[in-house]
Amino acid sequence: MLSKSHIKLITSLKQKKNRLQHGFFVVEGVKTIKELLQSKLMLHALYTTESFNIDAKDEILITETELKRISFLTTPNKALAIFKIPQVKPIDETKLIVALDDIRDPGNLGTIIRLCDWFGVKDLVCSKETVDCFNPKVIQATMGSITRVNINYIDLNLFLKETSLPIYGAFMEGETVYATQLPEKGVLVMGNEAHGVSKDIEALINEKISIPRFGDLQATESLNVATATAILLSEFRRF
Amino acid sequence: MLSKSHIKLITSLKQKKNRLQHGFFVVEGVKTIKELLQSKLMLHALYTTESFNIDAKDEILITETELKRISFLTTPNKALAIFKIPQVKPIDETKLIVALDDIRDPGNLGTIIRLCDWFGVKDLVCSKETVDCFNPKVIQATMGSITRVNINYIDLNLFLKETSLPIYGAFMEGETVYATQLPEKGVLVMGNEAHGVSKDIEALINEKISIPRFGDLQATESLNVATATAILLSEFRRF
Repeated sequence: MLSKSHIKLITSLKQKKNRLQHGFFVVEGVKTIKELLQSKLMLHALYTTESFNIDAKDEILITETELKRISFLTTPNKALAIFKIPQVKPIDETKLIVALDDIRDPGNLGTIIRLCDWFGVKDLVCSKETVDCFNPKVIQATMGSITRVNINYIDLNLFLKETSLPIYGAFMEGETVYATQLPEKGVLVMGNEAHGVSKDIEALINEKISIPRFGDLQATESLNVATATAILLSEFRRF
Repeated sequence: MLSKSHIKLITSLKQKKNRLQHGFFVVEGVKTIKELLQSKLMLHALYTTESFNIDAKDEILITETELKRISFLTTPNKALAIFKIPQVKPIDETKLIVALDDIRDPGNLGTIIRLCDWFGVKDLVCSKETVDCFNPKVIQATMGSITRVNINYIDLNLFLKETSLPIYGAFMEGETVYATQLPEKGVLVMGNEAHGVSKDIEALINEKISIPRFGDLQATESLNVATATAILLSEFRRF
């Protein structure tokens, strides 16, 4: 059964300020919820139309109609869970780190988190203007990778000024990445979807890299930031 | 001014069968429309809240309220255009070709079309079950690349049986792509989001390739198909 206070809490979690205030975020879909239940994340409540056979206190059986009422999706998928937002860990500056300068699209951030997970990047640092990683659309796109990547929202300018790691940035006019000797550790900065890397961050980049375009002159002027991140992380890791 | 018959035609174009019947598709957003107006595509009608200064016959000034009524987007962007679906060209089997085996997500197809454009892949062949490339969400994601990639919906099984090109396919258990000598010409087959390459297509693959995972054992079990295509196309083109 779904009480009014449950509904109020869940719908409030659509907004970042409420997620921060309550310390909770929403996850939907059986597959992702099951994956998160296996992780270190703390479950707060699970609303589901079929039993998951977990602790009865946390599992609340509801009807399809009730699920429709609380779901953020157009086509709800059997279950909705509330997890506690985990504590962030300190950034490990002895490895490869991805830094995002103002990524706005939730799908892009979700895809980049999944890429970090695949390529063994443990730390993702985000400028404060980057979309919140506990946004429901981001969670949807990460497919569970959110539990394995440590995501810090920081003053990116300050972080880059203070780090001793070499700083690489994706720029249209950068040196071709295929001819660049990439180190095992460093920071890879990816810029905003529309404006690229901002001016003040650009000033802190040690090496500008780019992915060569093979299409003719009329070809698309840019790659999507998530696909560009995929190619660059592959270049950092390939042997 | 927007007539009832205009509204009826536009809303009908949300569905593939109506697009095929009328031979038209819908494009939204000033940037993409402007790019398509520069291409060889034939404009059928342009509904806009601000003048584009093109032939008055094709340009119909409408109000924001009218645009809201015909737009497929939650936030309409100043203009909506109807273009004629172009004639497909024969497949050029002397180059690198991307083949899609049942890609269902419009965003993924749109991203892959944009990647083909970037990496100079002129021909994209799709199984008949692959999402329609004139689906509004695909068009939105291609960012104009739809005009520069020749897209054929074919019997993929038959095409792969008859081609003399070497056929590469993305498989989890394939040989690492970093250690594979890739040719300048060939077919790269990418499989469905949930099920990968289908059994009958798998039997026609000459070489199975994969992108190594660098995360630990708990890491995400797969990459999104569009990001995997990005990395593999980069590998085909890199020098």
